[in-house]
Amino acid sequence: MKEITLTHIDKGGRPKIVDISEKKSSYRRAVASCKITMKKATLEAIKKVKTKKGDVLNVATIGGIYGAKKTGELIMLAHPLNIEGADIRFSFEEDGIRIEAEAWLYGKTGPEMEALTACALSALNIYDMCKAIDREMVISSLYLLSKEGGKSGKWQGLSYQQEASK
Amino acid sequence: MKEITLTHIDKGGRPKIVDISEKKSSYRRAVASCKITMKKATLEAIKKVKTKKGDVLNVATIGGIYGAKKTGELIMLAHPLNIEGADIRFSFEEDGIRIEAEAWLYGKTGPEMEALTACALSALNIYDMCKAIDREMVISSLYLLSKEGGKSGKWQGLSYQQEASK
Amino acid sequence: MKEITLTHIDKGGRPKIVDISEKKSSYRRAVASCKITMKKATLEAIKKVKTKKGDVLNVATIGGIYGAKKTGELIMLAHPLNIEGADIRFSFEEDGIRIEAEAWLYGKTGPEMEALTACALSALNIYDMCKAIDREMVISSLYLLSKEGGKSGKWQGLSYQQEASK
Amino acid sequence: MKEITLTHIDKGGRPKIVDISEKKSSYRRAVASCKITMKKATLEAIKKVKTKKGDVLNVATIGGIYGAKKTGELIMLAHPLNIEGADIRFSFEEDGIRIEAEAWLYGKTGPEMEALTACALSALNIYDMCKAIDREMVISSLYLLSKEGGKSGKWQGLSYQQEASK
Amino acid sequence: MKEITLTHIDKGGRPKIVDISEKKSSYRRAVASCKITMKKATLEAIKKVKTKKGDVLNVATIGGIYGAKKTGELIMLAHPLNIEGADIRFSFEEDGIRIEAEAWLYGKTGPEMEALTACALSALNIYDMCKAIDREMVISSLYLLSKEGGKSGKWQGLSYQQEASK
Amino acid sequence: MKEITLTHIDKGGRPKIVDISEKKSSYRRAVASCKITMKKATLEAIKKVKTKKGDVLNVATIGGIYGAKKTGELIMLAHPLNIEGADIRFSFEEDGIRIEAEAWLYGKTGPEMEALTACALSALNIYDMCKAIDREMVISSLYLLSKEGGKSGKWQGLSYQQEASK
Repeated sequence: MKEITLTHIDKGGRPKIVDISEKKSSYRRAVASCKITMKKATLEAIKKVKTKKGDVLNVATIGGIYGAKKTGELIMLAHPLNIEGADIRFSFEEDGIRIEAEAWLYGKTGPEMEALTACALSALNIYDMCKAIDREMVISSLYLLSKEGGKSGKWQGLSYQQEASK
Repeated sequence: MKEITLTHIDKGGRPKIVDISEKKSSYRRAVASCKITMKKATLEAIKKVKTKKGDVLNVATIGGIYGAKKTGELIMLAHPLNIEGADIRFSFEEDGIRIEAEAWLYGKTGPEMEALTACALSALNIYDMCKAIDREMVISSLYLLSKEGGKSGKWQGLSYQQEASK
Repeated sequence: MKEITLTHIDKGGRPKIVDISEKKSSYRRAVASCKITMKKATLEAIKKVKTKKGDVLNVATIGGIYGAKKTGELIMLAHPLNIEGADIRFSFEEDGIRIEAEAWLYGKTGPEMEALTACALSALNIYDMCKAIDREMVISSLYLLSKEGGKSGKWQGLSYQQEASK
Repeated sequence: MKEITLTHIDKGGRPKIVDISEKKSSYRRAVASCKITMKKATLEAIKKVKTKKGDVLNVATIGGIYGAKKTGELIMLAHPLNIEGADIRFSFEEDGIRIEAEAWLYGKTGPEMEALTACALSALNIYDMCKAIDREMVISSLYLLSKEGGKSGKWQGLSYQQEASK
Repeated sequence: MKEITLTHIDKGGRPKIVDISEKKSSYRRAVASCKITMKKATLEAIKKVKTKKGDVLNVATIGGIYGAKKTGELIMLAHPLNIEGADIRFSFEEDGIRIEAEAWLYGKTGPEMEALTACALSALNIYDMCKAIDREMVISSLYLLSKEGGKSGKWQGLSYQQEASK
Repeated sequence: MKEITLTHIDKGGRPKIVDISEKKSSYRRAVASCKITMKKATLEAIKKVKTKKGDVLNVATIGGIYGAKKTGELIMLAHPLNIEGADIRFSFEEDGIRIEAEAWLYGKTGPEMEALTACALSALNIYDMCKAIDREMVISSLYLLSKEGGKSGKWQGLSYQQEASK
């Protein structure tokens, strides 16, 4: 049986930051998504404000971008990365909001953690702004949708995730 | 019909940080949880390392505590809070790991966002350390389990969340 | 002639952080303002977006609040302060936007630097978002409008500032 | 009439971070300046300390450099940039101090915001150190003096700014 | 034999942040020191600049204060603390500079780590500024000199340290 | 006699960040080390925990890596650098623990300060976790062991350090 080893644990069992110095720089991109489920009234309140002067989702956009910029600090064994672009997208569903975050850069390692962290922080910023009217919101289905660039090339999320995120 | 207004949006539609200066200081506590679902082999790899010199979950603990300490910066309209304690707990389930984060302090506003952010970052740190062997992990069921302290007192999560987090 | 000494320089000429441990905690508040002057077309572009879904000023609001939260780090000899509230206000003038930032807390030292830093960063965030269409914007008249609380009590900005800010 | 659009607002009115991944790396440089006006006695106090062991302006230098290093975090939609050099210069005027900040790097986007933020924070650090003897200081004329590098090449500030900064 | 347990490790072997919520607020103070040893020529260069407009030690002062303000973030299991004062002192010795850092506040836990971190960062800032002329500098004897406040009250460093720091 | 000048002080005596824009990018690496001396009982407590589920040194590893990632912010005149790898190593000695930190990257300036800061923070994190049982720990012999890359090429620490670090 093939032994599975964790890249972030060295032979002595100590956590380590992976060496990327030998990797080739390439154009790399990652997309992640998550969902925040909420009460109908909460969703309506967000939509109503949006129609007027658009707000909750603007703050959530900035919270997501900020998360992408700070990922190298928030993820203990991640490398500091300077993203060259990021995009946070929202779509209203019946019982909540789906968030998609994309990040890209030219470099030696990909922004998968940046995209995931952007999603999580965007959702948490929504939670914060709405928690006075709805404490029961749930953030779920946070996973990597796709990535491209680097040695492993293009990758697309699989059925396993669909299952878990239902 | 009762009008629902968002506390973080002022009358002009602009985001704002809620005024807590008139609130009474009290002992406040919040507990949040989430789950990270993964492949069996990934879970085994984490357990195997844990048996030896325990690692992935140690890093995830620190990542969660760090998240609780930085919440006032990561959540755009949150207040800076000095937590007085935090606890990150893990329990192995068949297809992943359940994370529970608790934070507390004596102050004018509660650490709900701190507990939620700690959960999310703890899970994201696990994701980062295992992503080389399992890109399809899913973080789900991130919600507030309970809170106590402050004017609204004790509060316990409801059935609504159980539904969404299935 | 009365000797004027700088509070942040010790007897040896070395910078120091002022000792506030003996000061009484009280409710303290500070208001600062500044102006960002711009081309008519730039102002129109901001207004147009505002009418639709309000944006530049939302980002500037968050940038200002973030500045108030990070002041204790950005100002080398300032104390770390946990603000309990902040408010960023904008008013359109013929040739630009006036920004007013207010911050408050209960503590041993006042949030004057927080209010000033919030103003500056709010204006700089506007500059950033509009610089592709107007590089010649000017930020001016950044000063303290008023403060209250603490031993020195209430204070109101004076004629000197009006002069300089014309 | 040519439609003016804001680069940091997407079609849906949402804030965004501009995509710089397709831009060419080049040597880029930006210079900004501002002025802090103060009472004669305040200026004398700063000069007197400077003659002895030089202080207020040293702290202001470091505050400015720190500002340039943190710009990617303070400006919500700015890219994280690693500056390769920065220079903060002061010149005494009759009624205050003029600050000039320069920043440079080899990269895909220029350090205009870094130079402007360095100026603002340098001035705010002076304000902080002198506020106990002069609350009425005014920061003004904060604008971009010049930039070079990138597709738009060299640019020099115009008469418009001179007007506003009088 | 009395079992010695580590306060930052819970029963399951997981790192934890110590609960201070039940502790009494009191006036707490800590003093730490360290030494940076260097070549004679390096020391002379620092002194010469100091005589003129004092520099290396000013930057080291600010680096130390900054370290004290960021300790809650740099020390993984430390609590975020708002220091109310700090003092960085230098004394020239024959072969280097001795640094003493003091920090104080009114709160539930003491600033021991703040004083130690301030010392270390002050010394590291000196190293950075002089490394082009002296790569062989050594930082040593970093330890706690004394602390006061809290349940354990006053404490003074012991002979053990003198030994190790020779 | 050859005049020795400090690279971080400009002609006017003002601190400055060194211009690295003209330097060539190359593969650069630095190794630093330090020692934390402690009571036998403290060392035993650390070892005992390590045998079970390994802890203090895991946290110290992460504290060191975090220090390397934040060096550009903690060292006032250092450049922001994105490290591409880091390694924190521990070895038990009779009366304490020796820490070695290595950092590397491809860039215009080397990670000497990153390696030194990683060592210091790794040691300070150990101090924090053990201070409840041993306040008298001493951190010493913090110095650069070696560096490679850049114009000055390979460099190895000298006898001078051995002397001072005894």
